[in-house]
Amino acid sequence: MRQAVIHAPGDVRVEQRDKPTIIKATDAIIRVTAACVCGSDLWAYRGAEPVGDPHPMGHEYVGIVEQVGAEVSTIRPGQFVVGSFMASDNTCEICQAGYQSRCMHLEYVGTGGAQAEYLRVPLADGTLVATPQPPSEDLIPSLLAASDVLGTGWFAAVAAEAGPGKTVAVVGDGAVGLLAILAAKHLGAQRIIAMSRHEPRQKLAVEFGATDIVTERGDEGVAKIKELTGGLGAHSVVEAVGTQESMMQAIRSTRPGGHVGYVGVAHGVELPGEELFYAEVHLHGGPAPVRRFLPELIDLIIKREIEPGKVFDLELPLDEAAEGYRAMDERRAIKALLRP
Amino acid sequence: MRQAVIHAPGDVRVEQRDKPTIIKATDAIIRVTAACVCGSDLWAYRGAEPVGDPHPMGHEYVGIVEQVGAEVSTIRPGQFVVGSFMASDNTCEICQAGYQSRCMHLEYVGTGGAQAEYLRVPLADGTLVATPQPPSEDLIPSLLAASDVLGTGWFAAVAAEAGPGKTVAVVGDGAVGLLAILAAKHLGAQRIIAMSRHEPRQKLAVEFGATDIVTERGDEGVAKIKELTGGLGAHSVVEAVGTQESMMQAIRSTRPGGHVGYVGVAHGVELPGEELFYAEVHLHGGPAPVRRFLPELIDLIIKREIEPGKVFDLELPLDEAAEGYRAMDERRAIKALLRP
Repeated sequence: MRQAVIHAPGDVRVEQRDKPTIIKATDAIIRVTAACVCGSDLWAYRGAEPVGDPHPMGHEYVGIVEQVGAEVSTIRPGQFVVGSFMASDNTCEICQAGYQSRCMHLEYVGTGGAQAEYLRVPLADGTLVATPQPPSEDLIPSLLAASDVLGTGWFAAVAAEAGPGKTVAVVGDGAVGLLAILAAKHLGAQRIIAMSRHEPRQKLAVEFGATDIVTERGDEGVAKIKELTGGLGAHSVVEAVGTQESMMQAIRSTRPGGHVGYVGVAHGVELPGEELFYAEVHLHGGPAPVRRFLPELIDLIIKREIEPGKVFDLELPLDEAAEGYRAMDERRAIKALLRP
Repeated sequence: MRQAVIHAPGDVRVEQRDKPTIIKATDAIIRVTAACVCGSDLWAYRGAEPVGDPHPMGHEYVGIVEQVGAEVSTIRPGQFVVGSFMASDNTCEICQAGYQSRCMHLEYVGTGGAQAEYLRVPLADGTLVATPQPPSEDLIPSLLAASDVLGTGWFAAVAAEAGPGKTVAVVGDGAVGLLAILAAKHLGAQRIIAMSRHEPRQKLAVEFGATDIVTERGDEGVAKIKELTGGLGAHSVVEAVGTQESMMQAIRSTRPGGHVGYVGVAHGVELPGEELFYAEVHLHGGPAPVRRFLPELIDLIIKREIEPGKVFDLELPLDEAAEGYRAMDERRAIKALLRP
């Protein structure tokens, strides 16, 4: 089968590789309908993370179940499924508490590489959620978004306790940040401040529910959020970047007693304890337990109440995956969808 | 009047100083019935914080109102009052959200020094809570504890979301840690693990509601907590020390999705972003909004449902304040009560 493989920073190739097979009785093999390039894929692509040996890429996917292992009981061949990037049994104490991204039997789905024709999904019953029926073609991008960026943005908004009467600020205008805006809107936030200096992203932010745009960054961005909130800071702040600057911007933009939800994969971040102590905010985040939200998100998408698929502003055949990476790296595209 | 003044690390003297007077119309002057030495006073005493010019010490107090400013309307001379170390108006948006320790008009009560015969309390109406009637003598230590260590331990337990069905671990066996145990017990925690290697403190921990004692520290302490919790970590962890080691011990002892409540004043702490990201815990803490809890705590004390005053294992006349500092520094005493 055809599969995207990273060889070095800036070097992603689509190659012929073996089709995955059932390894454990709890696995499923799916034929990938659509996959995409994640902001977190860019860390390696940009050389900010070591690449190591050439390896498959991608951890976001929707597809049709082709085969299941002997112990898979609820997922069946022929179903259209959406899954998280983290495989979870969905039954352990941690999963039951809503933290499937830290399941006691966790496996990373992306190891097999979702930017491919076929993908092995471990712990299929706990990881995959089937749609009631095969979705219409125009819903595919939104369902694909649910497998990571929507679920991650949603978790960030929930972790930041976005809700009625709240002012929510979002640091980061990538797909996750934009979808955190959509989530905050759905959760009933009164005011949603998008921090973005890129016009196409600002437009999408407003479409998703942003009421204010702040173009300033760092200390100036913080000052602007304070100015917009009577000097207090926002109740809820989403951090969707993962750098020292973005984390500090998020913490400093939050009022005492407020909540920071952080989902940007931390790179080189050190939080100063004294400042954090006196900031007196709530901090919560990490790899999003997307599985917690999937049933609700799929339902909202099928009912056409939300359209997260709008974040895909570039669609390419899988064979052109390299261009998808380039376009996102150069910020020509918000998010690239790949069709095997 | 007589007042404790710090001159240098290890050098606390009781001296004759001017009695405080009303400066602002919102002030009250109280005659101090009892004050005490705080674990946080030891940072300067031990030279871990610069002392600077000689200055008065103490920020925990109960007393009788002697005089009030022209704008004070609810607090009256003659009342027995308990107050927090942070003066707050209790009316601003931040106070109303329960964060009086970050009031928009915040003043630090300790500036005047509570280890003295008299104390000026700013924002008296918002800061002080009067008891329904003058309390009996034996309740004084417990009411004094409410002004900081009990309120701080309570906040930590609430921030850690201690409650029914939860396993709570407490890092730090000072008065705050011990009273966080009492709070966790009152909040209905199922299991409370005290981390302590000092026998008198272990005894008090058990009296306050601890079900398990862990004597190991650092990585070994974390391993022990994991062992006691089926490999998962505690649901709720209180951090009541403020060092790098204690913060990391608290974070690593918490299960994914669990809550860390930290109230140890951070000194030289740097939280590694990557580890925090994958730990996926909730973090909340800072200077405790003691005022939020005072009415409830005073009520529980007067009804004799809790006896936090047990943390005072040394009582001295104010003139012997220096011995109170020494005894706590050398860990001969958990907490020293001073009588002016």
